[in-house]
Amino acid sequence: MNAPAVAVTEHANRRSGGRLGRKAIRGAPIVSFPTLVRQIPAYQMVPDEAVELIHQESLLILEEVGCEFRDDEAIALWKAAGADVSETRVRIDRALLMELVSKVPPEFTLNARNPDRTVRVGGKNSIFVPMYGAPYVRDLDNNRRYGSLADLNNFHKLAYMAPALHSSSSVICEPMEIAVPKRHLHIIHSALKYSDKPFMGIVTSKERAEDTMAMAGIVFGEEFVRDNPVLVSITNCNSPLVWDATMLDAMKVYARSNQPLILAPFALCGASTSASAVGAVAQVNAEALAGVAFTQLLRPGSPQIYGQFMVTVDMKTGAPMGGTPEAAQMMYLMGALARKYRLPWRTSGFHVGSKLNDAQAGYESNMLMHAAILSGANYIWHSAGWLEAGLTCGYSKFATDCEQLIGWYKYAGGLPFDDFKEAMAAIREVGPQGHFLGTQHTLEHFESAFFMPSIMDFNSYEQWKAEGAKDHDTRGREKARNMLADYEEPKLDEGIAEGLKDLIARREEKLPDSVS
Amino acid sequence: MNAPAVAVTEHANRRSGGRLGRKAIRGAPIVSFPTLVRQIPAYQMVPDEAVELIHQESLLILEEVGCEFRDDEAIALWKAAGADVSETRVRIDRALLMELVSKVPPEFTLNARNPDRTVRVGGKNSIFVPMYGAPYVRDLDNNRRYGSLADLNNFHKLAYMAPALHSSSSVICEPMEIAVPKRHLHIIHSALKYSDKPFMGIVTSKERAEDTMAMAGIVFGEEFVRDNPVLVSITNCNSPLVWDATMLDAMKVYARSNQPLILAPFALCGASTSASAVGAVAQVNAEALAGVAFTQLLRPGSPQIYGQFMVTVDMKTGAPMGGTPEAAQMMYLMGALARKYRLPWRTSGFHVGSKLNDAQAGYESNMLMHAAILSGANYIWHSAGWLEAGLTCGYSKFATDCEQLIGWYKYAGGLPFDDFKEAMAAIREVGPQGHFLGTQHTLEHFESAFFMPSIMDFNSYEQWKAEGAKDHDTRGREKARNMLADYEEPKLDEGIAEGLKDLIARREEKLPDSVS
Repeated sequence: MNAPAVAVTEHANRRSGGRLGRKAIRGAPIVSFPTLVRQIPAYQMVPDEAVELIHQESLLILEEVGCEFRDDEAIALWKAAGADVSETRVRIDRALLMELVSKVPPEFTLNARNPDRTVRVGGKNSIFVPMYGAPYVRDLDNNRRYGSLADLNNFHKLAYMAPALHSSSSVICEPMEIAVPKRHLHIIHSALKYSDKPFMGIVTSKERAEDTMAMAGIVFGEEFVRDNPVLVSITNCNSPLVWDATMLDAMKVYARSNQPLILAPFALCGASTSASAVGAVAQVNAEALAGVAFTQLLRPGSPQIYGQFMVTVDMKTGAPMGGTPEAAQMMYLMGALARKYRLPWRTSGFHVGSKLNDAQAGYESNMLMHAAILSGANYIWHSAGWLEAGLTCGYSKFATDCEQLIGWYKYAGGLPFDDFKEAMAAIREVGPQGHFLGTQHTLEHFESAFFMPSIMDFNSYEQWKAEGAKDHDTRGREKARNMLADYEEPKLDEGIAEGLKDLIARREEKLPDSVS
Repeated sequence: MNAPAVAVTEHANRRSGGRLGRKAIRGAPIVSFPTLVRQIPAYQMVPDEAVELIHQESLLILEEVGCEFRDDEAIALWKAAGADVSETRVRIDRALLMELVSKVPPEFTLNARNPDRTVRVGGKNSIFVPMYGAPYVRDLDNNRRYGSLADLNNFHKLAYMAPALHSSSSVICEPMEIAVPKRHLHIIHSALKYSDKPFMGIVTSKERAEDTMAMAGIVFGEEFVRDNPVLVSITNCNSPLVWDATMLDAMKVYARSNQPLILAPFALCGASTSASAVGAVAQVNAEALAGVAFTQLLRPGSPQIYGQFMVTVDMKTGAPMGGTPEAAQMMYLMGALARKYRLPWRTSGFHVGSKLNDAQAGYESNMLMHAAILSGANYIWHSAGWLEAGLTCGYSKFATDCEQLIGWYKYAGGLPFDDFKEAMAAIREVGPQGHFLGTQHTLEHFESAFFMPSIMDFNSYEQWKAEGAKDHDTRGREKARNMLADYEEPKLDEGIAEGLKDLIARREEKLPDSVS
């Protein structure tokens, strides 16, 4: 648990050192925290009986209403497993459902191309993953515009440099200038080239998922990626209660190679669920469990991630919201269910509705991340960059979130008691009306005791004014700019780099320039 | 638990209705939520044994190091009680300490001049109280300047109008144009005149505390205020381990009239405590318990509020911070101790270091409020307006916090299960791939299901741009301006109003125009 303090200090030095400080530290190894192993208990908002009640209602939904699986092969698999199938409607009885769900391992290892960045997911092990899927960016000059490949490269560089991010995600923003049929190749290439952390797969078609696996095979070895998790992919249920062909195709590719999927319905509560937080959880739980169970028909024992992305909608406009009290409350319920099922689980962290990295973004972000941490989530995503309900990735927001994650990493690491006796001795040394700045204990714990951010500003008003009276959003953009200036690429082996380029060239020749 | 939804809807209508909407609602009764009765469990971050360990160390501090009580009467009282006294140093053995602490009632009623605003404090009962003590304001035009009486009146008006604020505080900002010796009279007058909620006392001298009680006596009746809590006052320990004469004088006035004190040391962790979160808590707990015990020498059984205000300091500059992970962690420890002692307890909520109502303010605010709520605090103060470590009260921040409190009120009210069966029926009605907007359940729960803020903006980017692309800070100022335009005074009876004016005039004649 000393890592965070070290890292923050380093960043702070880098900043205060200015150009010279940056130069001096150039070439120093990037600080990257290991898996967050939570040292604090999970918070349960409702009693066990309430969790059981929701669980029972979810089972009833799957038994009585059932779930759509709109794919012939999926239907055949469900029939063979003994489910009650009528056209694409699958009704799953509780014994079959829970038998399949129980095959999922409670924890798994997610491999990175740099073994030092390999992480564990599940149980007490949690990781932070940057956002995914923004068509727009809010750029370094605070303009909102379409994302580009250069932006995506930048976000992968930032993800690489952020100590508390454990993954590079993949399509943090869309490289909009690249034709859709070819885009996935460049997204995965960017994630693999500019960062050495685990990444995320493409799910928009079977072919693109296969391309993703082929690229992963070049980097990790074809044989390795047949059985060992190196990427995580999101498949969304079409709420209410529909798993469509595209998602099922992606599931087939990834689950059969033992690559974990996130089965986490994206629910707009009040529109795609009932206008009840508890009712929404019962439904999303049913959807997620049906998805998890299906993966075990594809490959029993394959690692999977249960979960949710649930926001409420503005009941007047239908617009998705973000950091609301109900979004936090629903996380606690999903966390309790995940623990009941002993499943690794995903929730979101900093996913806000705010258009800007302003006060709203901050209030929303920490409403959600606090709940994500205390509900014991294992795969905390989207944890950096997210603005505007996911339509925009902001550079300032990204840098801000990366700093905040250092604080959350420290928070979830618990309260250190190891120097408690020395701290008590310091009180005796100082006595009434003294101060502690010069005590032995303080000198020894000066750097590690407390979170020391650098984008957040706690200087005096006068000092802050002298430095330009910059708001947090401005300071966040500066931080992102400085980080990018300091970036050094964790180079791929030449053979691997060439292999990826060859594959991209070969595939691009065959792929059309637009979606027909 | 329907109150929040009603109120938010009303505010939203008011805003979207513009001038006409405001006019239509003018004269409508102000919405004010009753005491927050928490329906969610407290979160305990460390096991019981760790709480016990801290408790034991606090007892040892008071037995071995002791605490300074720099006042002759206080020393005499401690001697009479059997403490080990040497000059102003009081060493209190655990039996005496805990016997005194156990005399404090676990809950009490705090009376308002409007009985509908009377609240409970302690146990499951919590209240939100706006900030206190800012020399500066960040005004409606976003300028930072000295506070004035007009500003203070405005903040009391806003506190009156905010549904989830349960108190008017008192010196939300300092009316800097009024001479210090006379200022307290105008502060209390403003709180009593412009709002009908409970308020806070003045503690800067015995005389001023007596003036406060005299003014309260005019409003509530002299006899009533001798025994019934109508105001709450903060007395700060001079950390480490000093209760000074000014604070002890205020304690004497208020405790002897059964008016609750907050015994919540203001600790700059790392400077006035050791550089250890756990060590800081052990010290602050000792200081708070010593203060609580002393109040029971003044009036056994008088209601008191145990607690803390703890922020970490930037170890490079010594500047106080705000919404840091350690500040939240320490709250959970203090909450666990408060439950152990069965004491009503105070922590802070939205107390940030940020200079502006920007992203930093938001991240800090909800880092802290989430912990305040989950640690089960009863008197959550400072809950509105606080910027810049308390040096500034911001209009935008105040309005923002008032809206956020509605969300927190709803959050702590727990997850309603009463319509769960109906929500489950809605899923059966809708089935796969339907939507819920037209179901009977949705129509019935449209307004109450989810938090619906109005300063937070979840509109589409295009809509938001068309409305001026305003950031949250700007929208907060507009909200404050609109609220003030809608304000209607909850008038005091004429006799009481005259009585207050007379008292102020009489006292002002006797008081000097400057501190000698």
